[in-house]
Amino acid sequence: MPTNRSWKLAARPQGAIKDTDFTWSEEPAPDASQLAEGQVLVRTLYLSVDPTQRGWMERDTYLPAVRIGDVMRAGGLGRVIASKSPAFSVDDLVSATTNWQDYVVLPSTGPSAPIKLPKGVDPKNAMSALGITGATAYFGLLDVGKAKEGETVVVSAAAGATGMMVAQIAKLKGCRVVGIAGGPDKCRYLTAELGLDGAVDYRSDDVRAKLRELCPKGIDVYFDNVGGDILDAALANLAMRARVVLCGAIAQYNDADGGATRGPKNYMNLLIKRARMEGFIILDYFPRFPEAMKDLATWLAQGKLKDKVDVVEGIENAPRALRGLFAGENLGKRIVKVSD
Amino acid sequence: MPTNRSWKLAARPQGAIKDTDFTWSEEPAPDASQLAEGQVLVRTLYLSVDPTQRGWMERDTYLPAVRIGDVMRAGGLGRVIASKSPAFSVDDLVSATTNWQDYVVLPSTGPSAPIKLPKGVDPKNAMSALGITGATAYFGLLDVGKAKEGETVVVSAAAGATGMMVAQIAKLKGCRVVGIAGGPDKCRYLTAELGLDGAVDYRSDDVRAKLRELCPKGIDVYFDNVGGDILDAALANLAMRARVVLCGAIAQYNDADGGATRGPKNYMNLLIKRARMEGFIILDYFPRFPEAMKDLATWLAQGKLKDKVDVVEGIENAPRALRGLFAGENLGKRIVKVSD
Repeated sequence: MPTNRSWKLAARPQGAIKDTDFTWSEEPAPDASQLAEGQVLVRTLYLSVDPTQRGWMERDTYLPAVRIGDVMRAGGLGRVIASKSPAFSVDDLVSATTNWQDYVVLPSTGPSAPIKLPKGVDPKNAMSALGITGATAYFGLLDVGKAKEGETVVVSAAAGATGMMVAQIAKLKGCRVVGIAGGPDKCRYLTAELGLDGAVDYRSDDVRAKLRELCPKGIDVYFDNVGGDILDAALANLAMRARVVLCGAIAQYNDADGGATRGPKNYMNLLIKRARMEGFIILDYFPRFPEAMKDLATWLAQGKLKDKVDVVEGIENAPRALRGLFAGENLGKRIVKVSD
Repeated sequence: MPTNRSWKLAARPQGAIKDTDFTWSEEPAPDASQLAEGQVLVRTLYLSVDPTQRGWMERDTYLPAVRIGDVMRAGGLGRVIASKSPAFSVDDLVSATTNWQDYVVLPSTGPSAPIKLPKGVDPKNAMSALGITGATAYFGLLDVGKAKEGETVVVSAAAGATGMMVAQIAKLKGCRVVGIAGGPDKCRYLTAELGLDGAVDYRSDDVRAKLRELCPKGIDVYFDNVGGDILDAALANLAMRARVVLCGAIAQYNDADGGATRGPKNYMNLLIKRARMEGFIILDYFPRFPEAMKDLATWLAQGKLKDKVDVVEGIENAPRALRGLFAGENLGKRIVKVSD
């Protein structure tokens, strides 16, 4: 019988994530012959690595906190290896909340059921441009931010998973796009490889001054993945009737209280500029995913959208992979490869 | 020839407004016989006293800062005492940017032209419910906040000019309404006189806990006049898809940098709750004022809307009247009476 390797949550994180926040576990894999009617057994191939997962470790957010002792929660991609449901066949590729483990038993119906990948979709794209990441960028930018042709869009963590998608979609929609990222390599990638109109290196530039220079008409849509000082710098450069899209606050998640000590100092510019700041949770858009997938798949097939995926090998490296997001290690969407 | 008394701006305010931020001046009033074609001469009867005026003293905001040496800017109500325009007659009551002075010469056309009061409107109402104050509450609550019947509305500075209007309009629209104010007298006024569903005394209550108790379903619309800790307490109690309307931040205006040191710590609840925070400037709604005035005048005539006006006697007391707003002296709309 194969082994089910997993990482279980051992402690709520204090500051940066540590390996000791998790416990490594090796148990017998679920027995395919023991599946109940309607269940499927999935072998995990890839795990999604996302900043929001730190929040799940720490406290109740838009989802309940992961319980201490439970396998760490994560979205993933897997292959059906046994099925007691007519809806799934062995070898189907599915996306599901696999969590940090090799094998998972899932119901074939209801909110926890796996979702079959459409034929021909590359599993890596399914974890990125054609998954939650692409959908987050698409609806955040277009539905919440209402970015329109000719407008100026600024995105933070622009060399990260969601930011890179936001930046490219905004370019495809005819916007002037400026990305904020850490370090000259990432900034060069944004302008040279993705064709952005400008890049701000938050490690060396005066972000507020550089945004003013690169956005002479002000920022119409600011897509925020980071919070903190960078959010303030963007708020100081809003155009009239600007939209600030709150997608994340990675710069603050490692603070002791989940970032609750720092608020955007320049929030009153929302008043001066008749602007709005709005948050969203991608889960709400689930029924509308096909809209996004149609556009994203078309752009990808036409070579107009690049899907940069940063693969960390081995489930044993999942804690390190997650921790590394907060150090800005990744270029593009980070995933953990668990199995072939 | 009569004297034109005025207060001119002498210094940018540091912390609380002081009398020495202004210079008292007595000069000959404008000579009616010297009016140019198209001009009108207005005698000031009342001056509007508003928290935003401190911002005008300090720095460029949505209007340029008042220049040192200029008469302090203020909206007011006056009587035409001489006219070289067919559009205005002697004894017409008008609202206008009179500034802190007895007499003002104005053009009869363009953005600085006075606006004639409709027949039969009480000048005090014209300074409050049927003026900028009423319009601010009306459009802020209904157009920006989109408050709907059955929703929970919370308003800060609820015993102040705008807050009192917001609270009453929300009740008229069938909302559950909770007001936040300072001290037991104001809180009693809100529930006993205005019929609010609850009141929070920010001087003695734990605002966050009390809001939770009084808004069991969470806050659908939070109309913010104050900023600071109270905004944070409201953000901690939002309902799903809540709207936070930014109208002012009186608790922060006296900070050295216009309040730019403190941001709303709990802003990430906008994400968790898929909520938005939006600012507005009432000047943008000028073309739509008739919509608001129709409803407000009807409610006032029907006795469904109370217009509480707090009159400070004498232009010499204008600096004190403005300073007092920041100490929460006023119940309702504060105005300065300059002349009969």
